[in-house]
Amino acid sequence: MRGLSAVSLTVLLVGVSLIASPSVHGGRILVFPVDGSHWVNMNLIVQSLHAKGHEVTVVRTSTSWYIKETALHYRSITISLPEAICIEEPNFFHSFLSEMLKIQKDGGALSFVRFYWEVLTTLSMIHQQASMMGVEIFKNKTLLQSLHDTEFDVVLIDPGLPVGVLVAHELKLPTVFNVRWVTAGDGHFVVAPSPTSYVPISGNAMSDRMTFAQRLKNTLYYFLNTCIDRYVVCPHYDRLVEKFFGSDVNFYHLLQSADLWLIRVDFVFEFPRPTMPNVAYIGGFQCKPSEPLSSELEDFVQSSGEYGFVLMSLGTLVQGLPLEITSEIAAAFAQIPQKVIWRHTGKSPKNLGNNTFLVKWLPQNDLLGHPKIKAFVGHGGTNGIYESIYHGVPMIGIPLLFDQFENVLRLEVRGAAKVVHATELTRQKFLEVLQEVLTNPSYRENMRRLSALHRDKPMHPLDTALFWIEFVMRHKGASHLRSESYRMP
Amino acid sequence: MRGLSAVSLTVLLVGVSLIASPSVHGGRILVFPVDGSHWVNMNLIVQSLHAKGHEVTVVRTSTSWYIKETALHYRSITISLPEAICIEEPNFFHSFLSEMLKIQKDGGALSFVRFYWEVLTTLSMIHQQASMMGVEIFKNKTLLQSLHDTEFDVVLIDPGLPVGVLVAHELKLPTVFNVRWVTAGDGHFVVAPSPTSYVPISGNAMSDRMTFAQRLKNTLYYFLNTCIDRYVVCPHYDRLVEKFFGSDVNFYHLLQSADLWLIRVDFVFEFPRPTMPNVAYIGGFQCKPSEPLSSELEDFVQSSGEYGFVLMSLGTLVQGLPLEITSEIAAAFAQIPQKVIWRHTGKSPKNLGNNTFLVKWLPQNDLLGHPKIKAFVGHGGTNGIYESIYHGVPMIGIPLLFDQFENVLRLEVRGAAKVVHATELTRQKFLEVLQEVLTNPSYRENMRRLSALHRDKPMHPLDTALFWIEFVMRHKGASHLRSESYRMP
Repeated sequence: MRGLSAVSLTVLLVGVSLIASPSVHGGRILVFPVDGSHWVNMNLIVQSLHAKGHEVTVVRTSTSWYIKETALHYRSITISLPEAICIEEPNFFHSFLSEMLKIQKDGGALSFVRFYWEVLTTLSMIHQQASMMGVEIFKNKTLLQSLHDTEFDVVLIDPGLPVGVLVAHELKLPTVFNVRWVTAGDGHFVVAPSPTSYVPISGNAMSDRMTFAQRLKNTLYYFLNTCIDRYVVCPHYDRLVEKFFGSDVNFYHLLQSADLWLIRVDFVFEFPRPTMPNVAYIGGFQCKPSEPLSSELEDFVQSSGEYGFVLMSLGTLVQGLPLEITSEIAAAFAQIPQKVIWRHTGKSPKNLGNNTFLVKWLPQNDLLGHPKIKAFVGHGGTNGIYESIYHGVPMIGIPLLFDQFENVLRLEVRGAAKVVHATELTRQKFLEVLQEVLTNPSYRENMRRLSALHRDKPMHPLDTALFWIEFVMRHKGASHLRSESYRMP
Repeated sequence: MRGLSAVSLTVLLVGVSLIASPSVHGGRILVFPVDGSHWVNMNLIVQSLHAKGHEVTVVRTSTSWYIKETALHYRSITISLPEAICIEEPNFFHSFLSEMLKIQKDGGALSFVRFYWEVLTTLSMIHQQASMMGVEIFKNKTLLQSLHDTEFDVVLIDPGLPVGVLVAHELKLPTVFNVRWVTAGDGHFVVAPSPTSYVPISGNAMSDRMTFAQRLKNTLYYFLNTCIDRYVVCPHYDRLVEKFFGSDVNFYHLLQSADLWLIRVDFVFEFPRPTMPNVAYIGGFQCKPSEPLSSELEDFVQSSGEYGFVLMSLGTLVQGLPLEITSEIAAAFAQIPQKVIWRHTGKSPKNLGNNTFLVKWLPQNDLLGHPKIKAFVGHGGTNGIYESIYHGVPMIGIPLLFDQFENVLRLEVRGAAKVVHATELTRQKFLEVLQEVLTNPSYRENMRRLSALHRDKPMHPLDTALFWIEFVMRHKGASHLRSESYRMP
């Protein structure tokens, strides 16, 4: 955008508001993000592309929570969805979490079935809403024409919700994925061979060293995931593809034919596994050196003396744990000599120790990079995990939803974290885990080793992401890196 | 070596001469190269490592042809081999070529069997000689002790002849492979999954778009290659491993457990295929801008006027084609309006045109980068192919041996080269092919497109190679990038 901020002009279209900026030099990029923590990442790339002089257009829905309609660094297109299917994300995930914790706590023979039923219902709802966004786009001929007319160079997509893939096909544009999850599993399963003997399947929290029985279980998970993909998630998009492109276009092949996959993974975190030439790894691309704290926080942190402090934060989607769990955590925190800074938005536990400071928001990266930090208590979202790796801070993981279980496992098997499950969390157990990570130096040493490996790269992962997006723009695709596998039946 | 040139001191060991340089700062790197064109590449990496201040020790045999005993940029260890098994490389490959051309020319039902018999006999001889080098190293306790004492940081190996892998195991050192071929096939087949549906097998000159029948043939080649590997090549090293390490060490697992694979491939050349996180692609790492020609060559080239010139060179191993073929080539050259520079070391054809200039050696890179060049006639060795891609010069391929058939095919399917087989080469056919490449602009356009893709990299492939070698030295390996597959039975 060559130094111009995108002065927004609202152009009203039927059911859609298009925020247009004056035409600028540089490339034109159409972005289909996923809301929540995914957007935190995608937004960083959008900001960097804007800073490099490109004009970025972000497609959001009228219910978007994190993705704002107006911003200085992008134009937006807002798709209005029929109210009946709108998911209010924070509340939606909060009640989903409560239900999941209840199922795990109840246990019993049917818990596996109840668990999967809950997951599948939720997955289906999310993808129904996403596919409805596709319907709204494709039936709006004015919008489609305006997208055609804009002559974008590339479509940048988080294929966790893959409607952008269909739009790119309509516009005959090359695609770059900023991805970890696609439809029902890890993006790798769509693009690269995944031998179940040493590649643990999404949802099956296992390492890459499996016994024969575990490999068998892993293979069953592979079939389970394939079935979910085939019969729960993809049909939403298959219907869309059939309706708008006819029956000789296949949704799954469209997914597989992306020009470039920027996978938000680094192999200090992920287990080594087969990959493809059109995959670039950008795990930790959001990581950066810390900046000084506010004087209030700095004073609190300094008051910890030689003991240092512990940081706790459970991410963007989940507003809070049930009070019976947070009380146990508070009781354990009260017994350690360290100070504690806890990002907490729900009802405060009554038994907080004097050493514990609750805040509604905290500068996580600056705290993780502070010399006095001793450990990070997190839910195991990848953003927090990569920041922790970057700064070499050992973790205590309390995984709650989705991939968080397998994420924290990856740090645990490398001796850089301990895991405690929310449903089994008591003050004694949590205290034991805290003390183990705080007093046994191996956790910090292992995390520092991962940090050294992670930082030792020819190029920062954010620059890698920008390089490949611009590569695809320069060459109108990257078909020479894409294998012929996507044409296979 | 911190600016010091390696002043060589000869230390005599039993059957071995060790050229030692004064001890220096920087890392210590032990190198097991392969002679011939492979060494041309490896030597460039050795020079660059030396320039970065590392001390490099190169292991060669007393029959080494290209790898000199003394050099300013490395120390050498020379292994004396029993004379009976020594292969004099230039003559050896010259007579091998004559035999192969004869078999191809004769044709007939048994030619496939004769062809493979010749290949297998040769392969077995080469690997027998290489494994004998291993025997000489392992039975020489003085040498082994001196290798232990030197405290190398890493072993850099061209595993086309994989004795270095055993030495690295003995020394408990991390390994980096500078590789395209391992034992009986493409290095990828040892390290990454290779679905035969879209990955053409070494020896089976096919593209990645195969019909069902071609896939079936490809799968048969896969089994053929696996058998050759298992029963012809590996037994030489299995015996060595069993003798010196005992029966619970497996040669193939040693190969697979390399920390890092620098594969001499780029995906403008190779078909996209599955890969692994511990593979870095350095295809074309030898490429660099051209420099001015000598005045004699420049005058000749300028005399070509608007027609420009054609360059012909058939690589380092093969000294010359039979006269009946070179006469046909000369006759065709005589009929084109371009000038021709031909690197030719055998008996000169009598029917040379006035436009054709024979030379014993030529500055290939400088000629390929000259604005007046119109086409390159080569045998399809990868060094020449990458230089041709780098400079965007369309090719006429005359493949003779080994991988050259599949190499030129890769350029042909991308519309950047035409192929003519030596056994079918007549003056008419060669002239047609020459005229097609010289007059149809699509060949040059396609090669220029490949050149633009190849050059558009965040980092020069030679720097990529150096980065990863030093990465492995800094972290004493790269096990976090190596999958668990190598432990599988």
